[in-house]
Amino acid sequence: MPEHGGNLRAAQQRYGGTDWIDLSTGINPHGYPAPALAPDAWRRLPELDPALVRAACDYYGAPHLLPVAGTQAAIQALPHLRAGLAGAARVTVSAPSYAEHAHHWGRHGHAMRQVAYDVLDVAVADSDVVVVVNPNNPTGATVAPAQLLDWAERLAARGGWLVVDEAFGDTARSLSVAGHASRPGLIVLRSVGKFFGLAGLRLGFAGAEPSLLAALDDLLGPWAVSGPAQDIAIAALRDHAWQHATQTGLARDGARMYALLAQHGINSHGTPLFHWWAEPRAEAFHEHMARRAIWVRLFPDAARGIRMGLPGNDTEWGRIEQALKEWNNL
Amino acid sequence: MPEHGGNLRAAQQRYGGTDWIDLSTGINPHGYPAPALAPDAWRRLPELDPALVRAACDYYGAPHLLPVAGTQAAIQALPHLRAGLAGAARVTVSAPSYAEHAHHWGRHGHAMRQVAYDVLDVAVADSDVVVVVNPNNPTGATVAPAQLLDWAERLAARGGWLVVDEAFGDTARSLSVAGHASRPGLIVLRSVGKFFGLAGLRLGFAGAEPSLLAALDDLLGPWAVSGPAQDIAIAALRDHAWQHATQTGLARDGARMYALLAQHGINSHGTPLFHWWAEPRAEAFHEHMARRAIWVRLFPDAARGIRMGLPGNDTEWGRIEQALKEWNNL
Repeated sequence: MPEHGGNLRAAQQRYGGTDWIDLSTGINPHGYPAPALAPDAWRRLPELDPALVRAACDYYGAPHLLPVAGTQAAIQALPHLRAGLAGAARVTVSAPSYAEHAHHWGRHGHAMRQVAYDVLDVAVADSDVVVVVNPNNPTGATVAPAQLLDWAERLAARGGWLVVDEAFGDTARSLSVAGHASRPGLIVLRSVGKFFGLAGLRLGFAGAEPSLLAALDDLLGPWAVSGPAQDIAIAALRDHAWQHATQTGLARDGARMYALLAQHGINSHGTPLFHWWAEPRAEAFHEHMARRAIWVRLFPDAARGIRMGLPGNDTEWGRIEQALKEWNNL
Repeated sequence: MPEHGGNLRAAQQRYGGTDWIDLSTGINPHGYPAPALAPDAWRRLPELDPALVRAACDYYGAPHLLPVAGTQAAIQALPHLRAGLAGAARVTVSAPSYAEHAHHWGRHGHAMRQVAYDVLDVAVADSDVVVVVNPNNPTGATVAPAQLLDWAERLAARGGWLVVDEAFGDTARSLSVAGHASRPGLIVLRSVGKFFGLAGLRLGFAGAEPSLLAALDDLLGPWAVSGPAQDIAIAALRDHAWQHATQTGLARDGARMYALLAQHGINSHGTPLFHWWAEPRAEAFHEHMARRAIWVRLFPDAARGIRMGLPGNDTEWGRIEQALKEWNNL
């Protein structure tokens, strides 16, 4: 399995300490406050609540959505589904990018290659499936919607798929192609883990034409999304006031992180929820922060560098600033 | 997808009314009372808590267990895993039984047949994989552990698997082979949905030799079980006092249901959590109960009959008794 952030247990075991600041993911530290659950929320088999689909379609501006147990569930299922529907495919996955896509498209008999964002347009010509993360995790690279829709059309003309992972799309709504996901061959993935800070729900959405969503639903099986996850997500997706305040707060905190890193000589890219930079001394930086109980994400290979999420309060901001000062003084 | 109980939304749409008694599953109506959750339970990516595996191994008496997102996740993954490890298999699934096993073993290129419990022993001879539900859902049929271990040994001798679904095993602990699940080729599935009444958690366990569990874990991917589900299950699996009281209560309520049905001329089989009988007028009985806002499970095909779970209080017991009286007076 690819490595991931959020593995604070491993950090604590290796470095000790308990008062860790976890910046190893891009999860909003001020997540949506979960409402109280119905008394039988944990007891019943979780039927799908049609209100969840309606709330998600409204929020994402999408015509059709299938709730899935986290974007991860769709990422794992799509290569399997494609193999069953149309056999082995020539698959291009944008790189560097969220590692689970390449990991799973590398299975099921597909011929998978990873290409950089600036040559994706060329790769579309000889691919059956193209996977793009937009905005990209961890680099923040983006692709314009018109470009994506052009690729989707070219791929669909020969029965191909364009998979667009918009897990970090909430703070860049103008980039989203979710509204077009009823077009043949266009598949859009959304997550409530990052912007809503509800990674523990295990809930995401896949948008695509209805026949493809039905096939995906059948593959994923019944009761994929727990009842409490559905109840909490309905509240979050409908809470426009919280969403508006969170957009403002994340824009402010994202700018603060960008400026803080810049003050210490680091030119970062990303989204409000995470900042990434190519760091030649990546292992040393990661170790430096870990010794101060700050857990950042080390990318040792392709996207060689560091990714940092947002802290949750001023004490944490202060500790990060102090650690960056000490790094510069080494 | 196979049909299932618990689909109360469908019942309400078809028959109206709101005050439904849901007897369509075998879920304990007095489920474990979920403890208060940690403030960040919904926010963090759910790392696997080693305490969950320890608590489950203690409770089930198993040497190795992998937490999965409900038994359903393992049921869906095992046919896929087997195909990847050893190609197409000759698969025998006990019948009539929980429909998801046959549904998923019928995929992935396997040659699947369903045979009755009394000829399973013969079927082992020319099978690569045998799937048994013990005690069986919905009929309550059981297989002795010594018999299961013999089958497992015969199958393992040629690289085969015996899959034992013990989803309803909590009230029949002497039948369990979970303690032997480190033997090659023996795979045991357990669920916290039924006895603990926590179907909404989406949590179950697979027991098998460690190399097989590692392959299953890799196939299922990261963050399969939500953080809240882990926290609640740890409390439930450790709460011996609640478990003891629940065993007593379920034995009493199960006997009460058996007696109530017998008083109305129905000879049922099952477990304390559900009663099933071959009902020649199955559709009429289902309709009769539904018109009284009592939702029982209709099996129209193989296990032609009715399954009824337990009600939650004396008012519900009274309504069921009245409905049975009216059925007899038709």
